[in-house]
Amino acid sequence: MSFIHDDFLLTNDQAVCLYHQFARDEPILDFHNHLSPKEIAEDRRFSNLAEIWLEGDHYKWRALRANGIPEELVTGNGDPKEKYLAWAATIPHTLGNPLYHWTHLELKRGFGIDLLLSPDTAEEIWDRTKEKLAEPDFSARGMLERFQVKALCTTDDPAYPLSYHEEIAQSIQTCKVYPTFRPDQAWGIDQAQDFIQWVETLEQTSGKTIVNFDSFLQALAERLQKFHELGSRLSDHSFPYFFSHFPSEQEARQLFEQTLEGQNAKREEKEQFGAFIMLYLCRWYSSNNWTMQVHLGPLRNNSSYLLKTFGPDAGTDSIGDWTQAEKMSAFLDRLDQDDALPKTIVYNNNPADNFVVSTMLGNFQRDIPGKMQFGSGWWHLDQRDGMEEQIKTLANTGLLSRFIGMLTDSRSFLSFPRHEYFRRILCNLLGNWMAEGFLPQEPELIGNMAKKICYQNAHDFLQLESDEKKS
Amino acid sequence: MSFIHDDFLLTNDQAVCLYHQFARDEPILDFHNHLSPKEIAEDRRFSNLAEIWLEGDHYKWRALRANGIPEELVTGNGDPKEKYLAWAATIPHTLGNPLYHWTHLELKRGFGIDLLLSPDTAEEIWDRTKEKLAEPDFSARGMLERFQVKALCTTDDPAYPLSYHEEIAQSIQTCKVYPTFRPDQAWGIDQAQDFIQWVETLEQTSGKTIVNFDSFLQALAERLQKFHELGSRLSDHSFPYFFSHFPSEQEARQLFEQTLEGQNAKREEKEQFGAFIMLYLCRWYSSNNWTMQVHLGPLRNNSSYLLKTFGPDAGTDSIGDWTQAEKMSAFLDRLDQDDALPKTIVYNNNPADNFVVSTMLGNFQRDIPGKMQFGSGWWHLDQRDGMEEQIKTLANTGLLSRFIGMLTDSRSFLSFPRHEYFRRILCNLLGNWMAEGFLPQEPELIGNMAKKICYQNAHDFLQLESDEKKS
Amino acid sequence: MSFIHDDFLLTNDQAVCLYHQFARDEPILDFHNHLSPKEIAEDRRFSNLAEIWLEGDHYKWRALRANGIPEELVTGNGDPKEKYLAWAATIPHTLGNPLYHWTHLELKRGFGIDLLLSPDTAEEIWDRTKEKLAEPDFSARGMLERFQVKALCTTDDPAYPLSYHEEIAQSIQTCKVYPTFRPDQAWGIDQAQDFIQWVETLEQTSGKTIVNFDSFLQALAERLQKFHELGSRLSDHSFPYFFSHFPSEQEARQLFEQTLEGQNAKREEKEQFGAFIMLYLCRWYSSNNWTMQVHLGPLRNNSSYLLKTFGPDAGTDSIGDWTQAEKMSAFLDRLDQDDALPKTIVYNNNPADNFVVSTMLGNFQRDIPGKMQFGSGWWHLDQRDGMEEQIKTLANTGLLSRFIGMLTDSRSFLSFPRHEYFRRILCNLLGNWMAEGFLPQEPELIGNMAKKICYQNAHDFLQLESDEKKS
Repeated sequence: MSFIHDDFLLTNDQAVCLYHQFARDEPILDFHNHLSPKEIAEDRRFSNLAEIWLEGDHYKWRALRANGIPEELVTGNGDPKEKYLAWAATIPHTLGNPLYHWTHLELKRGFGIDLLLSPDTAEEIWDRTKEKLAEPDFSARGMLERFQVKALCTTDDPAYPLSYHEEIAQSIQTCKVYPTFRPDQAWGIDQAQDFIQWVETLEQTSGKTIVNFDSFLQALAERLQKFHELGSRLSDHSFPYFFSHFPSEQEARQLFEQTLEGQNAKREEKEQFGAFIMLYLCRWYSSNNWTMQVHLGPLRNNSSYLLKTFGPDAGTDSIGDWTQAEKMSAFLDRLDQDDALPKTIVYNNNPADNFVVSTMLGNFQRDIPGKMQFGSGWWHLDQRDGMEEQIKTLANTGLLSRFIGMLTDSRSFLSFPRHEYFRRILCNLLGNWMAEGFLPQEPELIGNMAKKICYQNAHDFLQLESDEKKS
Repeated sequence: MSFIHDDFLLTNDQAVCLYHQFARDEPILDFHNHLSPKEIAEDRRFSNLAEIWLEGDHYKWRALRANGIPEELVTGNGDPKEKYLAWAATIPHTLGNPLYHWTHLELKRGFGIDLLLSPDTAEEIWDRTKEKLAEPDFSARGMLERFQVKALCTTDDPAYPLSYHEEIAQSIQTCKVYPTFRPDQAWGIDQAQDFIQWVETLEQTSGKTIVNFDSFLQALAERLQKFHELGSRLSDHSFPYFFSHFPSEQEARQLFEQTLEGQNAKREEKEQFGAFIMLYLCRWYSSNNWTMQVHLGPLRNNSSYLLKTFGPDAGTDSIGDWTQAEKMSAFLDRLDQDDALPKTIVYNNNPADNFVVSTMLGNFQRDIPGKMQFGSGWWHLDQRDGMEEQIKTLANTGLLSRFIGMLTDSRSFLSFPRHEYFRRILCNLLGNWMAEGFLPQEPELIGNMAKKICYQNAHDFLQLESDEKKS
Repeated sequence: MSFIHDDFLLTNDQAVCLYHQFARDEPILDFHNHLSPKEIAEDRRFSNLAEIWLEGDHYKWRALRANGIPEELVTGNGDPKEKYLAWAATIPHTLGNPLYHWTHLELKRGFGIDLLLSPDTAEEIWDRTKEKLAEPDFSARGMLERFQVKALCTTDDPAYPLSYHEEIAQSIQTCKVYPTFRPDQAWGIDQAQDFIQWVETLEQTSGKTIVNFDSFLQALAERLQKFHELGSRLSDHSFPYFFSHFPSEQEARQLFEQTLEGQNAKREEKEQFGAFIMLYLCRWYSSNNWTMQVHLGPLRNNSSYLLKTFGPDAGTDSIGDWTQAEKMSAFLDRLDQDDALPKTIVYNNNPADNFVVSTMLGNFQRDIPGKMQFGSGWWHLDQRDGMEEQIKTLANTGLLSRFIGMLTDSRSFLSFPRHEYFRRILCNLLGNWMAEGFLPQEPELIGNMAKKICYQNAHDFLQLESDEKKS
């Protein structure tokens, strides 16, 4: 039997029924990823598996390094084929890791290949995939179609133009591609020179002359409006922990001004400035029916060596263990008091925070079903255990049936089978719960819950298509 | 098959045997809850499910809000029937949450109703329960009898009289009702005015004129004596973390005096004063064979909006993530050194603290079997996963067989089936362990352990009935 | 059926196959324990179970205390037989605790006894084991042979001579016994008098006159060389958290000098001095192909009462909850930048840190397969749940197939069945994963991974036998 067979990861009859009858055929709404709008606009083609698998995937880089592969064949100047062979030699060592599942799901769903990747099969798989990739429908857009992606949201710096998104909006019918507002740089005042440069870029893109703090805020609002017009209804933010000290407008203004004068802000000052900007943005999100995403808790760039030789996102980010509860409470409560708390999704990176995050979100639920979303298992938690723990925590402390489900967070056009992975895991867990009587024996009741978590909940919650200009 | 059938949650033969032959028929000793002594004394009657389910249950309020129900139908002035219908519309969204199990256990055990609650069945269930509630034995006391509650311990502020408990002691034979000493206000010196008022109330109740710190302490001792006479052998305390800085008596006295002069204490001062009072009380507990309960770790009243509009206990309390180990060590060690460490139960709220709390308690075990108890899964952990994790942590790091088991911590007379829920979960886990050979195939050995955890261990440990005045 | 039967803890056919065909017969390389080199050199004999079980086992002491046994029968002057009987009365209360499994594994594998220990069987077991212990091959060395221990590493203070190791190296053929460099005292500058005494001992043992900081460092290097000559390739360190502030050499020198003048260093000073010494040692480890072990996170000696009456290691150590991520990152990154990061194994004590530790180690993988090892479940985590969580965390976030596996960390010659315990748990988990399709149905592939984790990976990684002087 193939490793990736029809009932892969489905360990009981109820799970099989839930997956095949309710979950499997739902379309994909991938509401957070890091796909390149340029590659979608230009409908990029790939010459081989090395390109599509190894160019930007820091998960694989970490596995390669843990397997003792020299950096030359990880992020270095090594030959692509050799890099691929190093990966093929590494993959049998990833047994038990999600990379093992993703790799074989991608070979099967992307190319119809049922072999287990290893040094023995590496050449055959290289050749067969190379051949496939040369076919017309194996371009970037071809893959979106193959995987039935109905809509996706990229991740975009507001200082940069959305020209690729405009181009895509003109040219693609089957899959909607929305930008997501990711303004991390807007409070990067600890690096004054970078900030000044970013403000200049923002000035050009927004067409708004930035002479002072007010015009800076207006330029951000300008960009929000532009994103909105292109159908965006989502922002994204990355925090080690929530900023909980809100300065006065006067203090924020002063921080802005001293940064423009070239003074690097201290850590606390940066966090206060960030708190002010977030409050400003969240008022806008909240008034415009946007959803705020928060990716919480990673400790980044731990290896100075790789930061120096390669740069950020080298695969040396891991999980932080800051205390989260009081700061998260202060942040959300302040927004709530100012009528500035939008629909929110929080993804935490440290599984030890699951119950803290899920119960904290529960304190601020109001008026909108599932307004405060405990996000799906993220990054280092993006595997069966991580997903199951997230689902169980949510079920135990909130309303699983209101969950908006999975997203790939990926940089690769081959990653969409991660939705299948999630759906199998979800259905297997629910099926187990039925089998042991933890849930009632009501396939329609449970099946419809599963089905909605796969697509409809996200669709209804995000209301991406509610804008008439777009749809 | 009914959802709540005979073997609900029992997934193997050994579990079925353990539950039905050893656990099921044990009486209930509910040694911690928040039932109203007034309602027991007056034998309150309920007109409908809205009253008994929705009046004070912040678990349900959280679920209602997460489902988008407006506050009017949560804690507001909405019509009771409409509130009930909002709950009926919400319950199918709680699949996987303990509320789903509790609700159907209560319908079955309380009213003999086997239907799944939903908008479709809401009217029928409303009518059938209304009819039942009108019957004579559906009063508060009738329910205590129906659920075979042999003894229960309420939670009581020492400043207030125990007149209802006196009344109950005179009038009820089948179920003993004991007060529990919960003196959180005794170190509330950060709110001087509230503290002064509380001291005045204490003065009246204790009949002890409070002219200085010494007479304040004597008034507390007076109340302890009164609780003791009514059969109480338990205190209860709620801490975010243990107070670990013990002031001198001189310093504590000064804090008391400056508070009576109207000065609000700082956070550290409050914690030091609390440490002193706890040490004073624990000496008494320890000498009088009492048990101290500590509920550890919640972060309360996170939503200022609901705190303002509703007050505390609105369902916006969640889990804190303070570091616990060093403070817990310092607190318990100081008590131990002063011969002031009573029998102790610690319930933690953050599951990430399970191993820390359980192993820390193990350091102070001495002379009394199971002296330091790792308490059952509490509040946000009051579900199958939370209970199983608590049981496994205890089994892995201490003696499960000395565990004193379950309590409802509830405000509702319908909540006693949570003991059944716990017993099924306990027996299922033990049954699984037998089935996989993790425990020996010795039904008597394992069954008797399960049986004792359900009732006898708590009875022997707490020695509530050892006072001849009472029994 | 016996409790310890052939398929103990193996719950599916795949697990049975993996264990019996791949894991069971692998030899033991116990690369970390606290066995006494003296007892090995002298080939100690034991008169009864009290000696071999209760003399130094703080796990059992904790269980005895939790069962209410008076200290006299725990660490006190009680009669050995009475102590044993107290243990026999306690063991039925340890159901679910690893002590229950270890005890019965040791009775079965050590003595061929299949009875469950309890007051009923205590006398028979006492007599039968006493008889066995009198047989020639039940000495310390006899047990090493019985359990097929091919090599073991003890834990040794560098200030003390390695004469027993020299003696052992001359006299034992079947089991290699290596010392491990454990220099905790080398930065114990908070206790100046103890430190001065330790430096004097070091001076004598190393034969290196210590006149200043440089000669102190040279004396340490001298000892490293001596350990190396005896085949040691391992150090061991115990930290509450990683030291992250590295002082200049000048600052370190000053701290050394002021300590020799009798001044107790402050906590921060001690940690800085420790950071400097660790960096110095790690350069050596790294150049000499050694492996550094770090035991992370316990909070020790919590009971002042037992510290005073008994001393350290009384069984009142528990799990700490310091934040770990930023300090661990700073420590490893500094070593990495200085080309001083050796092969490393980190064992964490708080399970809430699993993902932090495992993902942090992943940031520093380079060139050597599995260079940064996430160590097996340790101390309070040395049970099925702890081991499974460690294995799953590693599989999810790293390369399980590169894992070097189990060690006993024990003080007892009867403890080697803990390797069997680990192997059964490992094979059962892998077997479950095969059964549910989480791993491919490839017994050779999975079996060889299991097999290597039992012995070969540790052998290849540690390269203990690579030194020709030794082998």
